[in-house]
Amino acid sequence: MPAAPIALLTDFGHEDAYVGIMKAVILSRCPGASLIDLTHGIPPQEVVAGALQLAAAVPFCPRETIFVAVVDPGVGSARRPICLRSGFHSFVGPDNGLLWPAACAAGTPEAFHLDQPHHWLPQPGSTFHGRDIFAPIAALLAQGYDPADLGTPIPDPERLEFPRSAATPDGILGEVIYIDHFGNAVTNLRPADLGEPEAGSMSFTFESQSLPGPATHYGAVPSSEPVVLLSSFGSYEIAVRDGSAAAVLGLKRGTPVFVSPRSAD
Amino acid sequence: MPAAPIALLTDFGHEDAYVGIMKAVILSRCPGASLIDLTHGIPPQEVVAGALQLAAAVPFCPRETIFVAVVDPGVGSARRPICLRSGFHSFVGPDNGLLWPAACAAGTPEAFHLDQPHHWLPQPGSTFHGRDIFAPIAALLAQGYDPADLGTPIPDPERLEFPRSAATPDGILGEVIYIDHFGNAVTNLRPADLGEPEAGSMSFTFESQSLPGPATHYGAVPSSEPVVLLSSFGSYEIAVRDGSAAAVLGLKRGTPVFVSPRSAD
Amino acid sequence: MPAAPIALLTDFGHEDAYVGIMKAVILSRCPGASLIDLTHGIPPQEVVAGALQLAAAVPFCPRETIFVAVVDPGVGSARRPICLRSGFHSFVGPDNGLLWPAACAAGTPEAFHLDQPHHWLPQPGSTFHGRDIFAPIAALLAQGYDPADLGTPIPDPERLEFPRSAATPDGILGEVIYIDHFGNAVTNLRPADLGEPEAGSMSFTFESQSLPGPATHYGAVPSSEPVVLLSSFGSYEIAVRDGSAAAVLGLKRGTPVFVSPRSAD
Repeated sequence: MPAAPIALLTDFGHEDAYVGIMKAVILSRCPGASLIDLTHGIPPQEVVAGALQLAAAVPFCPRETIFVAVVDPGVGSARRPICLRSGFHSFVGPDNGLLWPAACAAGTPEAFHLDQPHHWLPQPGSTFHGRDIFAPIAALLAQGYDPADLGTPIPDPERLEFPRSAATPDGILGEVIYIDHFGNAVTNLRPADLGEPEAGSMSFTFESQSLPGPATHYGAVPSSEPVVLLSSFGSYEIAVRDGSAAAVLGLKRGTPVFVSPRSAD
Repeated sequence: MPAAPIALLTDFGHEDAYVGIMKAVILSRCPGASLIDLTHGIPPQEVVAGALQLAAAVPFCPRETIFVAVVDPGVGSARRPICLRSGFHSFVGPDNGLLWPAACAAGTPEAFHLDQPHHWLPQPGSTFHGRDIFAPIAALLAQGYDPADLGTPIPDPERLEFPRSAATPDGILGEVIYIDHFGNAVTNLRPADLGEPEAGSMSFTFESQSLPGPATHYGAVPSSEPVVLLSSFGSYEIAVRDGSAAAVLGLKRGTPVFVSPRSAD
Repeated sequence: MPAAPIALLTDFGHEDAYVGIMKAVILSRCPGASLIDLTHGIPPQEVVAGALQLAAAVPFCPRETIFVAVVDPGVGSARRPICLRSGFHSFVGPDNGLLWPAACAAGTPEAFHLDQPHHWLPQPGSTFHGRDIFAPIAALLAQGYDPADLGTPIPDPERLEFPRSAATPDGILGEVIYIDHFGNAVTNLRPADLGEPEAGSMSFTFESQSLPGPATHYGAVPSSEPVVLLSSFGSYEIAVRDGSAAAVLGLKRGTPVFVSPRSAD
């Protein structure tokens, strides 16, 4: 039986060999492991952005994938190294909420405190648990170990909730929760929150401007014009055709977005 | 028989999990697929730059490689998802010219409109066809499906031609067509266009300066000095030794470059 | 027997298809090769930074890994393409010192001048030996060729030494040798140089400020405060908790760092 694939997500960037070293540790202990880089471009220490990207990727990954995610400002402190298990997936990383939303997609996860140093690299440091703890644990999971072999069940892993939209008398108030590489501003407003609106039936208001929406595709507006449409995350995004909504419209994480039905006049 | 390798080229960058999600879809449907990242750093929506990098990479790829390229400003519009086939290679992506130059290297390609949604992810969106259409199609091709199984032949795929150099009474007029990571300015001037000139026999003029060339290697000039030599793309490039020609000389895509024989005096 | 893994380190960046083309050449000649990207983000032409990252990664790589490293300002000049062998590892790249520190970790390496063009791509150019020479050589090594089959022994490969700390009457003078993605400033001061000091027993002085250290982990200081602790490179680093020490403290490569015992008063 081939080893289960291991998917990696970190804030390590691409300048240094940190990601390569994590992979080297995994491949040293699980030769032939199948690795998938989800992304290593999470902004440094932005746990919420990491949690969001991880949760977005999981539904598209092979069954039984083992996820290793490291956005870990508390490395070396008392924060625990953990493994969550839910459905067919395992999630390895720091106990700071990063893994929680992704692991919850298949029901309430079981949680394990990775408290058995004999499974780690010898003499782990206090700055790089991706290398010293999480990579060796992932290699063991890929070879068929059970999380219960590698840690102790715990009832209280850190939970993280994404900001939610809120109903008001006049409409729904949400916010921008992510800016992507193209400058698209992804909101937390989902079709179900808005009653599965038809194209063009709503008004999206942000930064003192209002746009009709949702549109069906970027090309529904002329080049350089703003447009609201359903993003690949399953929620609405504000984009600028052939441009960056973040740069052109001044949107950033946390920018409020208000949606209401368009008046018929 | 192992699955054919799949080579990926996009403008998705490395901040988000978009590339990782495409790979996850491929590996979910074709476990053990061999993936090659050509690059994901094409500037957003720059179809010509993507076409150029793709065409440069294809000759070095394994026989029967399947290429998936996504630089796709028209995603979700009426632009068609297509597959081109020529020689031993298949090319999957948007019908906007991106695939055309690479596919033409082995003769006129056959073209197929990917018009059979039952081969895609269920409920494809209008913002991420790399995930919803192109990745699933690539997984099928890697498993031995024929493009004709997945689409309908079409006579009119979009064509894209790179800017060509032009002969004038006094020499050859070309231009910068690509700036690379090092700041080297790659032109569309090829040795054959210039009569396979000997080292130092020509004068390259751009931005009101003239350089003798071609040189044999970067080290033919002192550090920080400009130099013209044969690039790895097979055409001449303007470089600055140990520096960035784009930054130092103000070169950019489209900058005219004129070449003429050096006078003997 | 599966082919030995091949680990890659370059300054090629991620904008262009250069890294992808190197991989394509390797996979064309050694189908199924196992590739590990250590990093491609070494600053252009910074041989010392490349040597440092390579040396840091090697101890974590699988036995018999073949390393291909390309930071090569002298490409196309008289500088030789070489292979170093030491312990179980082989190192392929330019003869400019890049490979030397990593190869020395397992004893004095044997060196070979790669002087047999029939093992390379046909008609190698003078700008991209990663593609034309080093990738084909790596593919052969991965298939079991011996460096002696591919080159001629040489006694004088280029050596590169990292800057060393120096003892003074009052303490130890070192310097910042690397700034990482997080802005952490890695020094060349190792615990052994300082007598394996206990936490908080020393004073680290740089840029006219002094910090007690080493600390045990980033969280030992409040957010945004500077801290000195043992880095994942095995030497001390200066960090700012939840921030960038390079940006906040103005540290850069070469910044002097002085360490002395803290006075008891």
